[in-house]
Amino acid sequence: GKHVVTANKLVLAKWGEELFSAAAEEKVQLYYEASVGGGIPVIRGINESLTADRIEQIIGIINGTTNYILTKMTLEKASFETALKEAQEKGYAEADPTSDIEGYDAAYKLSIMSRQAFGVRIDPDSIYREGISKISTRDIDYAAKFGYTLKLLAIAEEDDNSLELRVHPAMVPVSHPIASVNDSFNAVIIRGKAVGELMLYGRGAGDLPTGSAVIGDLISIMRSNICTGTSNKYGSTLHPKRLKEAGENRTGFYIRLNVRDVAGTLGSISTIFGKHNISILSVTQDVGEDNNASLVFFTHKAMEKNMKASLENIKKLGNVNRVESILRVEDFN
Amino acid sequence: GKHVVTANKLVLAKWGEELFSAAAEEKVQLYYEASVGGGIPVIRGINESLTADRIEQIIGIINGTTNYILTKMTLEKASFETALKEAQEKGYAEADPTSDIEGYDAAYKLSIMSRQAFGVRIDPDSIYREGISKISTRDIDYAAKFGYTLKLLAIAEEDDNSLELRVHPAMVPVSHPIASVNDSFNAVIIRGKAVGELMLYGRGAGDLPTGSAVIGDLISIMRSNICTGTSNKYGSTLHPKRLKEAGENRTGFYIRLNVRDVAGTLGSISTIFGKHNISILSVTQDVGEDNNASLVFFTHKAMEKNMKASLENIKKLGNVNRVESILRVEDFN
Repeated sequence: GKHVVTANKLVLAKWGEELFSAAAEEKVQLYYEASVGGGIPVIRGINESLTADRIEQIIGIINGTTNYILTKMTLEKASFETALKEAQEKGYAEADPTSDIEGYDAAYKLSIMSRQAFGVRIDPDSIYREGISKISTRDIDYAAKFGYTLKLLAIAEEDDNSLELRVHPAMVPVSHPIASVNDSFNAVIIRGKAVGELMLYGRGAGDLPTGSAVIGDLISIMRSNICTGTSNKYGSTLHPKRLKEAGENRTGFYIRLNVRDVAGTLGSISTIFGKHNISILSVTQDVGEDNNASLVFFTHKAMEKNMKASLENIKKLGNVNRVESILRVEDFN
Repeated sequence: GKHVVTANKLVLAKWGEELFSAAAEEKVQLYYEASVGGGIPVIRGINESLTADRIEQIIGIINGTTNYILTKMTLEKASFETALKEAQEKGYAEADPTSDIEGYDAAYKLSIMSRQAFGVRIDPDSIYREGISKISTRDIDYAAKFGYTLKLLAIAEEDDNSLELRVHPAMVPVSHPIASVNDSFNAVIIRGKAVGELMLYGRGAGDLPTGSAVIGDLISIMRSNICTGTSNKYGSTLHPKRLKEAGENRTGFYIRLNVRDVAGTLGSISTIFGKHNISILSVTQDVGEDNNASLVFFTHKAMEKNMKASLENIKKLGNVNRVESILRVEDFN
């Protein structure tokens, strides 16, 4: 029978429905601004400011640990291992960093935002998830060469009858403000049909920013405690919506291959991409040692399952030694 | 006796007190999210999310027209005149662009935000104001050389017993997300004692973003219309606070001088800066034609009146031909 304010993302992501239903039954309020993005008014932005709008997309840097590591790797050319160790020493990463670096934490927060924005119940374990432990500084260098920066993004996108949810590293254009979200800062881009692109940026963790959000929630409850009803746009009534399978997701791709530097290699790779409906934006070849070369492809938007299938075929080519990297590219257009 | 939602910044900036008092008397609500930053939840951020925090500083790019012009000048090396003409053709600037390019529009919005954030009544005409019509692409090039971008900023800063308000072009570090706020986008940085640095970014104008904010306000009123009291953190009770005189403001400075390229010139200029308590961060000399040279100074934070006084003395030096530019530098630290 009491109003509740919480900053606990894990409880909300996993047992949110039970909590929202209980709150609705008891006619009490449940506020949780601090559960996503610390003191950044993400939940309030979705719930109140954009209540009149239709949210079409959310793109967030919502894990400070991975953003700190990627920033070190980008600005100081640190290896993943060195950057992780430094993050642990500074208290940004835990002794077991799995939840952060493999994207679990971001998936929890994405499920909370998606419930708010789209009124859909999301099991965080069903979200496509890829971490940053395989990122190399080499890929970060290629990203820079083509005008991109690497970030761990949590993305939710709605179309007429389905919802696409994913957490993975992706290249973002350096010209966009999100590319300058560095260190342990967080940012969430919200695209509304009417409002267009909004970005909310700030400290995603820490006792004071989190405390600021918790007290803001408390005051909201006090201000409205003679009002009836719950504070949630969707209350406990959710919409049925199909969650897209990971293979249906569409993004641009960056592919780095190690190949034998012989005539015809590029041709046979391009043919395979073409057969799978993947259109190439640019190719760069860097000659390496022992008659081997790096081939770097940027593609137009392609379906994930088509990319997987084409890479299976490309791996079988005699002149392809190995697939070194696959990264997604988010161009914000 | 009716609740009111408005997007009219001019009316709020100039006659806000009359409106807030009338609303308090009648126990009705006055909402105005769309008056600053279109669909960006700036007012709600200050009023609700940060209601528990103490706001220390606000830094905003809150005029789309000037930001569009500066973006054209920066990215396409357009002159001020060309960029203004293009802005007029695209409908971003009015036939008489004075209100935008001379900073009046930004000053109105700054006074509205400052009332919300600091509970102070501000006459917008008392705000120190400088526009962008004197900016040259040469200064933009120097800014880039030293890692900066030029933006028209509206700044409010509180200390224990006074408030500093100013609108002027300033250099911002390219590494900060605000440097990538381009074209007609707006952004407002809010620094809270607890929450640290927040930035809210989005489309600052346009019918749909503005409409989204207006309807968001309407729904807030509907949700809370059985509650008593007004929606304002400060209601109609304002704090007495001294508004700083422009001369007391402290910022970093960029100064470009045209001088005769003879020994001792730099020495005599530096001596004058020193006498006025102005500490130099860097000096660059570019030799030009006819034995003349450009001297570019970046200074540590200095008081505006000290800078003015030292430039008066520097102008009198025989080897100084003229002061080409004075711009402020905001380093966000």
